[in-house]
Amino acid sequence: MIDRLIEKIKSTNAPIVVGLDPMLKFVPEHILQKAFREYGETPEGAAEAVWQYNKGIVDAIYDLIPAVKPQIAMYEQFGIPGMEVFQRTVAYCKEKGLVVIGDVKRGDIGSTSEAYAAAHLGKVRVGSKICSGFDEDFATVNPYLGSDGVRPFLKVCDEEKKGIFVLVKTSNPSSGEFQDRLVDGRPLYELVGEKVAEWGKECMGTGSYSRVGAVVGATYPEQGRILRRIMPETFILVPGYGAQGGKGADLVHFFNEDGLGAIVNSSRGIIAAYRQEQYARFGEQGYADAARAAVEAMREDIAAALDRR
Amino acid sequence: MIDRLIEKIKSTNAPIVVGLDPMLKFVPEHILQKAFREYGETPEGAAEAVWQYNKGIVDAIYDLIPAVKPQIAMYEQFGIPGMEVFQRTVAYCKEKGLVVIGDVKRGDIGSTSEAYAAAHLGKVRVGSKICSGFDEDFATVNPYLGSDGVRPFLKVCDEEKKGIFVLVKTSNPSSGEFQDRLVDGRPLYELVGEKVAEWGKECMGTGSYSRVGAVVGATYPEQGRILRRIMPETFILVPGYGAQGGKGADLVHFFNEDGLGAIVNSSRGIIAAYRQEQYARFGEQGYADAARAAVEAMREDIAAALDRR
Repeated sequence: MIDRLIEKIKSTNAPIVVGLDPMLKFVPEHILQKAFREYGETPEGAAEAVWQYNKGIVDAIYDLIPAVKPQIAMYEQFGIPGMEVFQRTVAYCKEKGLVVIGDVKRGDIGSTSEAYAAAHLGKVRVGSKICSGFDEDFATVNPYLGSDGVRPFLKVCDEEKKGIFVLVKTSNPSSGEFQDRLVDGRPLYELVGEKVAEWGKECMGTGSYSRVGAVVGATYPEQGRILRRIMPETFILVPGYGAQGGKGADLVHFFNEDGLGAIVNSSRGIIAAYRQEQYARFGEQGYADAARAAVEAMREDIAAALDRR
Repeated sequence: MIDRLIEKIKSTNAPIVVGLDPMLKFVPEHILQKAFREYGETPEGAAEAVWQYNKGIVDAIYDLIPAVKPQIAMYEQFGIPGMEVFQRTVAYCKEKGLVVIGDVKRGDIGSTSEAYAAAHLGKVRVGSKICSGFDEDFATVNPYLGSDGVRPFLKVCDEEKKGIFVLVKTSNPSSGEFQDRLVDGRPLYELVGEKVAEWGKECMGTGSYSRVGAVVGATYPEQGRILRRIMPETFILVPGYGAQGGKGADLVHFFNEDGLGAIVNSSRGIIAAYRQEQYARFGEQGYADAARAAVEAMREDIAAALDRR
């Protein structure tokens, strides 16, 4: 799947992943009201609104981008109907040819991580049959529990030719509280990065990149430069562009000389673009077209920054 | 809810939480076959088997214990039907008067942690209505992203009078890989423990314990002793007893002088007790009675260890 992701990044010329993090306040009123008329002001109604909103966006942008990243928390908050729409969104995006990164940030001790890996990337045996759960292409993984929390994911990645992105240096303001603490004079995120590189070597794709990627926030470009060097074969998923403050020029350090090695996420910068002044002309009704325009602008911003380096 | 948990620990005289981590291989054949006859060898069939298995155990032990801890990964692997049974298990245990700790190990950046907190402990607004998701009493939380990943949970804990247990030192063999790394000469888990104590002060119950608890593995008793001192007002959830190797004598350091401050988890040691030689007399059909006998033995083991100190 890492090979397929790279292929799609090349063919779209867009190292971009769109975060499908549908907060209800982003969903245009006409979609919301229609869903509430059909299903009431219920979790079912909320889930239906999220689904229609997602579908509109995906239909408008799927040809421009290689991948989407649905954030499962935004679905999980609506209970079962929310989880159903998470699953439906994953399946629909795959039908549209998109690579799907499940932003689930799971991680636990061995046997439990096995179950999470099965839930999101693998399969589970039921009697004589083999079934799958949510079946994303990639999942994000939290490293705090160490190797035996991560290895079950590696096993499934090998079996299914899928991948993970391990949290290394996250984009949020307080990520430094633990991640930046110095261990033998070096920040913890560097040690996690080294571990990611090590796990990655056990789990290479057919090209020069591993099935084990890393998450490093666009809001920390200097750390990105260092981690890029520590993990040369690791694809970096870069959140924090746009709404969180990351800019095109901050991104160049995350890429390798081959122009690959990073994929930049934007969530509300794309899916709620219609609420920004520069896309206000599209109006609420045109939210999907606004998303398309925002993807095009993001693609140009990143290409220009990479050209300038 | 921390006050209610303490009250129930006192009234049952059992600082015990039973982990409802129903791996399919633990489910007795007669339950499995009945579920498969009704729903086929499908995720629905697996989920039904898990539900009947859980219900049998809960009915047999609910009067002996204060709390249960369903591990969501074991349900999530069966997709939507699995999540439905997670939800049904939570609701059923609450009906039976048990405190429910959702072992979900969630954690993300601010706005996303808000959604997780709503999903598992809080409520979510849908139009003019307020709905709830999975509605556990406590949830486990991963601290790797720092304060702004944890604070949304604190807010919901205050509003709903619920609680969290933050991962500090986990029970698995490789937990030391990052958690034990020395920062200014002290292991990272101590710094996380200090942070937990600090978060906890903002979020006290009505008694002398906070709504913010910690997870510290029974497999690391020496670290438990240190963390007990660093976090005097923190309730410690202690996994790793039984199947993972922790013994009664290891547990005493996790308790305060008041005999409180810790709740010890056992999962397969209870729910799959019938597979152990000492409970083999119950047979597969008697798996629930075996679970009851195992709870009684665990209660005595812990009481004896606490008496000896």
